[in-house]
Amino acid sequence: MTQHGTLGVAVIGTGRMGADHVRRLDEAISGARVTAVVDIDPRRAEAAAARVDGCAAHTDPAAAMAAAGVDAVLIASPGPAHEEALLEAFARGLPVLCEKPLTPDSASARRVLDAETRLGRRLVQVGFMRRYDSEYQRLKALLDAGDLGRALMLHCTHRNVSTPPGYTSQMTINDSVVHEIDATRWLLGEEITAVTVLRPTPSSGAPEGLSDPQLVLFETEGGAVVDVEIFVNCGFGYQVRCEAVGEHGTARIGDAHGLTVQAAGRWGGEIAQDFVTRFRDAYDREVQAWVDAVRRGGTAGPSVWDGYAAAVVCEAAVRAQATGGRVPVVLPERPALYAAPPR
Amino acid sequence: MTQHGTLGVAVIGTGRMGADHVRRLDEAISGARVTAVVDIDPRRAEAAAARVDGCAAHTDPAAAMAAAGVDAVLIASPGPAHEEALLEAFARGLPVLCEKPLTPDSASARRVLDAETRLGRRLVQVGFMRRYDSEYQRLKALLDAGDLGRALMLHCTHRNVSTPPGYTSQMTINDSVVHEIDATRWLLGEEITAVTVLRPTPSSGAPEGLSDPQLVLFETEGGAVVDVEIFVNCGFGYQVRCEAVGEHGTARIGDAHGLTVQAAGRWGGEIAQDFVTRFRDAYDREVQAWVDAVRRGGTAGPSVWDGYAAAVVCEAAVRAQATGGRVPVVLPERPALYAAPPR
Amino acid sequence: MTQHGTLGVAVIGTGRMGADHVRRLDEAISGARVTAVVDIDPRRAEAAAARVDGCAAHTDPAAAMAAAGVDAVLIASPGPAHEEALLEAFARGLPVLCEKPLTPDSASARRVLDAETRLGRRLVQVGFMRRYDSEYQRLKALLDAGDLGRALMLHCTHRNVSTPPGYTSQMTINDSVVHEIDATRWLLGEEITAVTVLRPTPSSGAPEGLSDPQLVLFETEGGAVVDVEIFVNCGFGYQVRCEAVGEHGTARIGDAHGLTVQAAGRWGGEIAQDFVTRFRDAYDREVQAWVDAVRRGGTAGPSVWDGYAAAVVCEAAVRAQATGGRVPVVLPERPALYAAPPR
Amino acid sequence: MTQHGTLGVAVIGTGRMGADHVRRLDEAISGARVTAVVDIDPRRAEAAAARVDGCAAHTDPAAAMAAAGVDAVLIASPGPAHEEALLEAFARGLPVLCEKPLTPDSASARRVLDAETRLGRRLVQVGFMRRYDSEYQRLKALLDAGDLGRALMLHCTHRNVSTPPGYTSQMTINDSVVHEIDATRWLLGEEITAVTVLRPTPSSGAPEGLSDPQLVLFETEGGAVVDVEIFVNCGFGYQVRCEAVGEHGTARIGDAHGLTVQAAGRWGGEIAQDFVTRFRDAYDREVQAWVDAVRRGGTAGPSVWDGYAAAVVCEAAVRAQATGGRVPVVLPERPALYAAPPR
Repeated sequence: MTQHGTLGVAVIGTGRMGADHVRRLDEAISGARVTAVVDIDPRRAEAAAARVDGCAAHTDPAAAMAAAGVDAVLIASPGPAHEEALLEAFARGLPVLCEKPLTPDSASARRVLDAETRLGRRLVQVGFMRRYDSEYQRLKALLDAGDLGRALMLHCTHRNVSTPPGYTSQMTINDSVVHEIDATRWLLGEEITAVTVLRPTPSSGAPEGLSDPQLVLFETEGGAVVDVEIFVNCGFGYQVRCEAVGEHGTARIGDAHGLTVQAAGRWGGEIAQDFVTRFRDAYDREVQAWVDAVRRGGTAGPSVWDGYAAAVVCEAAVRAQATGGRVPVVLPERPALYAAPPR
Repeated sequence: MTQHGTLGVAVIGTGRMGADHVRRLDEAISGARVTAVVDIDPRRAEAAAARVDGCAAHTDPAAAMAAAGVDAVLIASPGPAHEEALLEAFARGLPVLCEKPLTPDSASARRVLDAETRLGRRLVQVGFMRRYDSEYQRLKALLDAGDLGRALMLHCTHRNVSTPPGYTSQMTINDSVVHEIDATRWLLGEEITAVTVLRPTPSSGAPEGLSDPQLVLFETEGGAVVDVEIFVNCGFGYQVRCEAVGEHGTARIGDAHGLTVQAAGRWGGEIAQDFVTRFRDAYDREVQAWVDAVRRGGTAGPSVWDGYAAAVVCEAAVRAQATGGRVPVVLPERPALYAAPPR
Repeated sequence: MTQHGTLGVAVIGTGRMGADHVRRLDEAISGARVTAVVDIDPRRAEAAAARVDGCAAHTDPAAAMAAAGVDAVLIASPGPAHEEALLEAFARGLPVLCEKPLTPDSASARRVLDAETRLGRRLVQVGFMRRYDSEYQRLKALLDAGDLGRALMLHCTHRNVSTPPGYTSQMTINDSVVHEIDATRWLLGEEITAVTVLRPTPSSGAPEGLSDPQLVLFETEGGAVVDVEIFVNCGFGYQVRCEAVGEHGTARIGDAHGLTVQAAGRWGGEIAQDFVTRFRDAYDREVQAWVDAVRRGGTAGPSVWDGYAAAVVCEAAVRAQATGGRVPVVLPERPALYAAPPR
Repeated sequence: MTQHGTLGVAVIGTGRMGADHVRRLDEAISGARVTAVVDIDPRRAEAAAARVDGCAAHTDPAAAMAAAGVDAVLIASPGPAHEEALLEAFARGLPVLCEKPLTPDSASARRVLDAETRLGRRLVQVGFMRRYDSEYQRLKALLDAGDLGRALMLHCTHRNVSTPPGYTSQMTINDSVVHEIDATRWLLGEEITAVTVLRPTPSSGAPEGLSDPQLVLFETEGGAVVDVEIFVNCGFGYQVRCEAVGEHGTARIGDAHGLTVQAAGRWGGEIAQDFVTRFRDAYDREVQAWVDAVRRGGTAGPSVWDGYAAAVVCEAAVRAQATGGRVPVVLPERPALYAAPPR
């Protein structure tokens, strides 16, 4: 590492998420510097590099990883490019923060899982950033403390204002509900064993052909039932809520709050319009936690197993969406490297 | 009717609900008097009558209905006794407020429906009192106003502190979820077309053999999806909530409120412990609305068709609970007497 | 009383409040009937009487009180007419529900107090209806239970949408803050000993010459301090809140609640626009409580002493408003007839 | 500055606040490093320095400021030591983040004001960290946007669980209410012109001799009125709230939120127990904003004028507390260096 242990990070991909991570590492994260950025578009790479003092531009991830001053890798390129970048990082023993999804499907995720398993040590933190949201963390701590007893159900809501052109029903699972898949596994410490999807008559606000909203149901190995309202063209705001129902009580996060206004005959407040507002602090905490862990020589947070399991559940959910029936989820045995439960 | 148009009411059944209705008519309702009470136990009938000035005790419903000063009938006896009392009231042309369930099963409910249809005029208001709760009424008014667009989903919660001995999984449907069945039909103005029931691993607080909690799913003729958490041994309180998800926004009722306390490191308030506290005003409004309608010579509120439809959906839900699968609901054509949608 | 103990009530005054009480007694209150109405305008009296079966119209309160079938009197005429009507009712031994103010000033209130004291029994309930609001009652019960310790402060808010023409700064005290004066005395069980009024630069929404908003401060005999924001042209709604600060915690009432809507980027709910909406149930409970007490042969609720003490505090507050300084409140000794603390 | 523009900071004082700032600069702030710590206790200085890579320990502030690698100074020593350290920093042209109070009284604050005025450029940011709390910032933005009209009143609450031994009534003003003094000036953009303090009978939870709670009233040059409940032994939590009452509506911050739990008959959530929990993010933002401004060659945030004005108001409040009367606040003309209103 550089002077005083500052972590040199290569950021791969300088699209919306990548550019945001470059800015975050530069302006908000303690103990790290962006020493290289990678984009297949050389002008975009150079534009990103120019904004950061001492940062080099690359078009080839492998070259960036080989460069001096690169101690770790943040992968924010499109999903199909993840597998190759991950394997390259494994070859060089570089710690990685990999934006979700780990890879676009369970087969490729399995290859990454096998590669890291062969390596024999964990290098990857997967970007399921809700685990770093302070409300989710308080909910998790409360469930782990046991005061509410065993969690029997989760009621989840996931709403977006609207979808970009080309957004498909499958993307509601792979891009959106995947967060509830990880949150369910993490909060309950249990794998998901079956998925069912109900599709109400679509909202008139949904693009032609898109099932929106949907009600997605998970069953877990411990017998918990989870319902998720996914409504990606709800029109009024970005909203993520979760109510855990335990044997002795319930706990709820995600209700709006903070500044309450009374005017013109109404009381209330604003609803965040996008995930950047709702989860800004979670992204900061996620990246800071990764930097801190890597500087201490370790890795923490969601593992490759978590990324792989999410991919398997997503594939089952997409089938359940198409068939209308209940689809079982089958996972292989968890490798010893990931022995701990998905916490 | 008696002097100045006061309605003379015979109350049939003096158990918990019946005794409460006697007290309500005596102390809280304007324009009505209890002139007769009926119980198969003569001592209980006489004890109830003794508390009200000018009230006679009976053991036979027919005799009470025939007595002077009886202008209308409130049926609060056990469900199996309802059919006979309803037919007797039909024979005498007496208006009836019949506590739910209309009758214990769809076959007997169908006989009552046919009898009232032959009579050619509506005499019965069924005791689905949530339609008289001010929060439900505000939610209904908001949905009817159309600002939220078409309702796509309802998320319902129905929690009781604990169940009495002998409470069965079927009773969770017939005694508890039946309220959400009526509320769904009334709020959406649509019939229910299918039912599915998911049964998580029961809470350790549930009696042996009882599925508790459960997640009950309705689909409606308009394609809406409704999920109901029914948790009758939740331990912490009595709670009825409903969130309607429309095309342009959502609306929620049932969150605790009123008096907020801060002490000992916590903020918050009390949760009602039973339905009497939560729905006291709704019962008062229900009975006052019935008395007002009858004094004006009419009938209003939930009809025999509503009672019959609820019975049919309950039977489907009990089958869904037993099989784990999706059970379609099939209703006959609605008689012209009940032509209006279930509003 | 009439058949079956129904209370015959003469309602004096058929303006807004009087007409509303006639409707209330006729439609919502159990055990009472309006048998006479009084208005100096004979056409208005007859119009009011015509709406109620068996009700006579009068222009003279004394004649109405003398009529057959009149067991009790509800005074809803303008304040200056109260004293004469009260003394007439005393002469006849008739129970009275007297809308606030008891009388327009402390001198006349003192005469009424002396008259009832000479009579030796309490006939009057004064219309401070907040004591019958369910939230205030829960707050009172909580304070009396002692869990929060002694009450040290009250933070009160009293907001109206706008004022009618001719509304003066003095009326903000006599018509509006008088409710907080009674609520303070009732909640704390203590007399008020001093008043201070601060007058911010008026809102541009206030009529020329009206101090609006104002901050009114009370000190009590037990050393509690009470602040009241009175803002009668706040523009956005009718709002009455109270936070009690105790030695061990706080309790708050009056926050909006019930139906929560999310739409168009905002969450929240409606704010009531007038006191009729906010306190409708309180008025019903107030009148029902009075009818119930009178039918049992007694009187309950706010007494003539409470009406008198409020008048004395109002006069001090108006002086404090004019001078900007702190004005002590001096009350005579409380007659034995009103020995109980102001609860 | 050091490599890549990292700001080298000398932290003066390693008590609770100083040690926390050292940790913050080391672990949470981007672009800064602690290169020197100062404490009059050499062992404490060395212990603090030992925790940070490349950090030197000093006992003399001037020596630390003269050391290589020191680009800026964070003063977190006791208030009486501030003046000398500030003047030393002025002599060296070093930017300063000075924890509140600027100095312990208005006379010494005036000397610092005069010194910086003679210097002709602003070097100091005073540690009024509420300006960096996200809720306060949203409230300020809302008021500045003008939708609520001119602010007429602020209702403030400031509660602490308990006080350490030796805490005096004067400290409630100088250590606690000073935050509301700055918040009032900043939110309204107006100077305070008078102070009144009401002292209820103290809570039984307050130490002998301490006036607790108190109601502190401010009047501003624009005619706004501000009430502050200061209750430093409230027992149940740390709580800071503010409701702004504007001509067209109100806005409120500081209500608890986030995770809502239902259990054992109650709904609600936890209340923070100290300012570290409530304002952790505000401290992070404050220090990050200072580092960012200094790295860009400027200064921002609360100025020496703000620190001086707060000292003058505090002195008036302490007199008002002692006398029970209204005490005017007189400020000299604002030097051109601080021409902008207190925003």
